[in-house]
Amino acid sequence: MSEPESLGELAVKYSRYYGGKVETIPKVPVRSLRDFAIWYTPGVAEVSRAIERNKEESFHLTNRWNTIAVITNGSRVLGLGNIGPEASLPVMEGKALIFKFLGGVDAFPLPVRAETPEKFIETVKTLEPAFGGFNLEDISSPECFYVLERLMAELQVPVWHDDQLGTAASTLAALISSLKLTGRSVKGSRVVLLGAGAANIATAFLLERYGFDPGDLILVDTKGVLHPERDDMDSLMLRNRWKYELAIKTNRSRVKGGLEEALIDADVLIAASKPGPGVVKKEHVKAMAKDPIVFALANPVPEIWPWEAKDAGAAIIATGRSDFPNQVNNSLVFPAVFRGALDVRSRGITYDTAIAAATELARCAEEKGLNENYIIPTMEEWEVFPRVAASVAKQLSDIKLARSPTSYEEELVRANEIVKRTRKVIEMMLEIRAIKPMPF
Amino acid sequence: MSEPESLGELAVKYSRYYGGKVETIPKVPVRSLRDFAIWYTPGVAEVSRAIERNKEESFHLTNRWNTIAVITNGSRVLGLGNIGPEASLPVMEGKALIFKFLGGVDAFPLPVRAETPEKFIETVKTLEPAFGGFNLEDISSPECFYVLERLMAELQVPVWHDDQLGTAASTLAALISSLKLTGRSVKGSRVVLLGAGAANIATAFLLERYGFDPGDLILVDTKGVLHPERDDMDSLMLRNRWKYELAIKTNRSRVKGGLEEALIDADVLIAASKPGPGVVKKEHVKAMAKDPIVFALANPVPEIWPWEAKDAGAAIIATGRSDFPNQVNNSLVFPAVFRGALDVRSRGITYDTAIAAATELARCAEEKGLNENYIIPTMEEWEVFPRVAASVAKQLSDIKLARSPTSYEEELVRANEIVKRTRKVIEMMLEIRAIKPMPF
Repeated sequence: MSEPESLGELAVKYSRYYGGKVETIPKVPVRSLRDFAIWYTPGVAEVSRAIERNKEESFHLTNRWNTIAVITNGSRVLGLGNIGPEASLPVMEGKALIFKFLGGVDAFPLPVRAETPEKFIETVKTLEPAFGGFNLEDISSPECFYVLERLMAELQVPVWHDDQLGTAASTLAALISSLKLTGRSVKGSRVVLLGAGAANIATAFLLERYGFDPGDLILVDTKGVLHPERDDMDSLMLRNRWKYELAIKTNRSRVKGGLEEALIDADVLIAASKPGPGVVKKEHVKAMAKDPIVFALANPVPEIWPWEAKDAGAAIIATGRSDFPNQVNNSLVFPAVFRGALDVRSRGITYDTAIAAATELARCAEEKGLNENYIIPTMEEWEVFPRVAASVAKQLSDIKLARSPTSYEEELVRANEIVKRTRKVIEMMLEIRAIKPMPF
Repeated sequence: MSEPESLGELAVKYSRYYGGKVETIPKVPVRSLRDFAIWYTPGVAEVSRAIERNKEESFHLTNRWNTIAVITNGSRVLGLGNIGPEASLPVMEGKALIFKFLGGVDAFPLPVRAETPEKFIETVKTLEPAFGGFNLEDISSPECFYVLERLMAELQVPVWHDDQLGTAASTLAALISSLKLTGRSVKGSRVVLLGAGAANIATAFLLERYGFDPGDLILVDTKGVLHPERDDMDSLMLRNRWKYELAIKTNRSRVKGGLEEALIDADVLIAASKPGPGVVKKEHVKAMAKDPIVFALANPVPEIWPWEAKDAGAAIIATGRSDFPNQVNNSLVFPAVFRGALDVRSRGITYDTAIAAATELARCAEEKGLNENYIIPTMEEWEVFPRVAASVAKQLSDIKLARSPTSYEEELVRANEIVKRTRKVIEMMLEIRAIKPMPF
């Protein structure tokens, strides 16, 4: 079961056996069929009238308050490329499972046939009345930046692209701890980002928002170091203005060349590029400042093996994998972010929401005691999710995006209850075999 | 609790207390967080690849095989008119609850912001990859005819407009029994349909398809009897070609005037017009043939009270209400139709599917013993749903719309298992208070 191949085979067999991963279940009692007169006609008409009078009531009188879409056009699914909406459905289902399991969020897996960004945006806007939020997933870059920007501006519910903000937030959390452990501060720390896709573009913007001087950041993509005199600047301006903007404001010292040149005396490497090993080499790490921080986040194999980075002098190493210490993992973020955002019936989510989540994550880790093998909580630490939810709910209340503002303490209690209830229901369903045990 | 007002108040209070009626729950075990490697990355990639190679696998490896959308644009919700998508959400949720409770179908409540028929059609087509079928709901007439026709032709999954085919099928079931009880045959029976909205237009076409001579049908709308010389024929041709077609082929004897004229010597009245009482009068019924059949289907109050119709000589009376005998009720049809259609992974649904459902319903009633107060099963007769599902699955297999063809007997067993499992899960959830008991 440790080989990716056999995990994949198992996944196909189990998917066929169970026929999917989530189902829709009533959450109200039906004592007798007469109760349909309350839940359906004629009683339901009065509920509709109440919402007709005030649309905001849809966040209180229906499950909209706890329902999001895990939506994709299938244009960049995992490492598989543009495999289309049907083939992306198992991934969306898996994400919906995690949303419920870790955050108590009702997430509906929703791959759509929308090839262009405009059509995708239009579709999400059309669906807005049914949902309390949207988790965008597996959309190709750079279109994903445009799609997120438009939807964040035009919808009255939270929109989150997990491949951007989720990854950026968990990376920032790990980075905050790493800076502390190595005695660095945000000001003056030099950060190299290898890879300039959805994750690292969002991470760069989030680091800037958090307080890093953009001049201290250097992005490196397949063409080498990003700087304002690169040949492709005109084309970037047209087709990827996010990367164009970063080309202009990062890399104050105008480093040119490749990863090697960029890493000289750098404090931090955040690699989110392509599966290794060997994408980042020992010599690269050796060129960095003393006690460097190395995040090698590619899956399934990090850009450099942790032991190689260690050999080369890295003080702290993080990867995307659960079988090494320091897993930088979106799953710590997205269920909790939506838990908090939904509980306050938020009108949106901002970069500062991602920062609130990241700093709370780092705080959780610090309270337990940081060390080089523990810079970020693991998914087993259940108490972390309600705390992140609470910090998100508070931030959204502070900036007035919350329809139902709340305090950190109030939300901590509420999120705890919801997550606990969900776990209990799932345990009981296993016990009564409503969820069938694994067959083989 | 018997007054519509207090039912409505209760519905609002309960909806607020429970925060909606359905939720999403895992249906696979998560023994530890390591299982996410099967349900999500890296394992899930192999499931995606299998579907990429063959899209039909999405009906076997995900919950698509059991998932439909209960979708509306909110343009004609219950008797409330065009109240928009947000306000229609409670109704869609109620329908989703019934779908699961009676048919074991995972139905997702999905109101969309799509004002024009073209936009609505486009939206549904965009959503096709996520669903095994679509239950259209509460769409205004005559747009609903166009929308259904287009979607039935252009999608590769079943599309059903319950206000058309659901009502037509349950009406036909009741009519088959009524004809038997009163010694009538399909040929030569004269049927008047009062109201020419979604329900009665579909019923007229379904009666024709079932074997009624369209010349023996007479439709009556707000302008009176429908006939080919009516002033509005040109406008009908343009904006409602379904009604136009019926104006031409029904009413062989060219009756003109109103309901009174239409009913002279008629065998059957099917009223699906507007809430009564007094919309149909005793004198109208008295003008009908001996032992007439009167269906007064308007809600919440039938076009004529049953006792008035009885007084006026009606041999058999049916309404849409559960507190009178002979409730003509879509809920007997839609959960079972989708159960059968989903179980064979059908590419579509036809008028003959509705006939298969209706004849099976009538057969169930006949086997129990027909009488004037029992012409159609009630919702309490659980054994009826798997039987209707089985007849639907067989019909779709016979006409080669089924991706996974099956026999009546096979589907009877499967549908029974699914419906029983659902009821058991719900009972257990009530027992462990995962579904909270009614608070007041």
